[in-house]
Amino acid sequence: VQSTSSPKAFVERLLSRQRITSSCLCVGLDPDLDLVPDNVARGADVETRLVAFNAAVIEATADVACAFKLNLAFYERYGAAGWNALRRTVDAIPAGCIKIADAKRGDIGNTARFYAEAFFHSMSFDACTLSPYMGVDSISPFAAYADKAVFVLCRTSNPSADDFQLSGSDRPLFADVARRANDWDAELSASIGLVVGATRLGDLEKVRRLSPALPFLIPGVGAQGGDPIETVRVSRTSDGPVLVNSSRSILYASRAPDFADAARHEARRLAAALEQTPIG
Amino acid sequence: VQSTSSPKAFVERLLSRQRITSSCLCVGLDPDLDLVPDNVARGADVETRLVAFNAAVIEATADVACAFKLNLAFYERYGAAGWNALRRTVDAIPAGCIKIADAKRGDIGNTARFYAEAFFHSMSFDACTLSPYMGVDSISPFAAYADKAVFVLCRTSNPSADDFQLSGSDRPLFADVARRANDWDAELSASIGLVVGATRLGDLEKVRRLSPALPFLIPGVGAQGGDPIETVRVSRTSDGPVLVNSSRSILYASRAPDFADAARHEARRLAAALEQTPIG
Repeated sequence: VQSTSSPKAFVERLLSRQRITSSCLCVGLDPDLDLVPDNVARGADVETRLVAFNAAVIEATADVACAFKLNLAFYERYGAAGWNALRRTVDAIPAGCIKIADAKRGDIGNTARFYAEAFFHSMSFDACTLSPYMGVDSISPFAAYADKAVFVLCRTSNPSADDFQLSGSDRPLFADVARRANDWDAELSASIGLVVGATRLGDLEKVRRLSPALPFLIPGVGAQGGDPIETVRVSRTSDGPVLVNSSRSILYASRAPDFADAARHEARRLAAALEQTPIG
Repeated sequence: VQSTSSPKAFVERLLSRQRITSSCLCVGLDPDLDLVPDNVARGADVETRLVAFNAAVIEATADVACAFKLNLAFYERYGAAGWNALRRTVDAIPAGCIKIADAKRGDIGNTARFYAEAFFHSMSFDACTLSPYMGVDSISPFAAYADKAVFVLCRTSNPSADDFQLSGSDRPLFADVARRANDWDAELSASIGLVVGATRLGDLEKVRRLSPALPFLIPGVGAQGGDPIETVRVSRTSDGPVLVNSSRSILYASRAPDFADAARHEARRLAAALEQTPIG
């Protein structure tokens, strides 16, 4: 089911941001204090160090990133200090940038509503990632927010992604998810997108055929080995925008005091590669 | 693949606890301040009120509960205050009780390792729930903890659980998950269990046939309508223990100042019903 009406609010904001930045790069803010250079808020507490590192990366990359994605595990591992750092990091992202909570939650009823409230109301995330295992009951509480987006796990980039995909069969699970996501996008208020890994280009192409107009959030380039140019070639269409995420290759481009400059350089390099344009 | 060796540490502890309490009841500590009686730490901050409510329920039910399950969304919705309340609640559960983090996480690599570290090391949970969508990569970082357990979502109790189960086919997804969980239990260090809802008795029975010796965590009795006696009849075997969870029917048995007494009464009633014994 394809809608012929104008794009939803989230897609309009995404496209606008991508025009402004000439970039489909999403920077993953997954801070790991074991890898953060010592000079970042040296001697301060966990919350302060996390926020200082993130703020430096945000400042260095915001003009070449259409979005930032925060994987919640990297914050939750630090307990309450991590949650405070998460909230302060979201607040530090400039207006206009798309902010994605990479939560991969999959729960129902009240539970899902509480998560939606936490991400979309208490914090100002624009989108979050969810698991489809329990069906639309896990999606609809988030998708009730008309100006937000939900990215549903579809074809992930990890080695065991195949365990339950029946990918040899004529009806792989990810194809079912891709088909249903179109219906959800038509039926529910929020934009529905898909998480599709860059490490299996053939499946990425197949998912795009099944979901021609949904936004894709694509992990798996950079450290995981997906090719940036081929990834964009098979997945981006005039109606179907993509966000290509990279985390480690940008955050830890240097682990010395010049990390922010190195992050900026790597983000610009990758953003240019994704557009197949020279670094401006 | 069934092991003929002695049960793993988690299963031994679970069985021991079930013998001591004569109960397979798991009490779900899912506090919602909108439903907590006013007299609980009246006027105090969110963290204090959550901990006070939980502590009263724990004290009232610990001798008839073999386990407590904390759905993390009910804490995360309150941000850092919720995380502190989560940690303090886990600490308030008496030694010997099984403590389950109902997280339904499904992530990989570092991310999964961080969650595992948070639940099993920083906090003293004995088990957590996980989504199988991304395959064994999501399970193994948790299952590296030999004395812990991982309950994998298999057949859930919600209406849209069918969206991707292909349950009309000869190869429903939940049956694949149940089969693979046996292999994981044989291959990985931790105990592997399954989350199987009480609302579809035929599927519960089928999952038990496929996984004769795995512990089952069973939601869906009480408020969701599953029959306690039938649930235990089709799912518990001499080798295959069950944990039957109830949250709302116990926590909010009364919303007046006598809520703890009411919770105790309802927990005893349900525990007795599960064993088909008169309330002692």
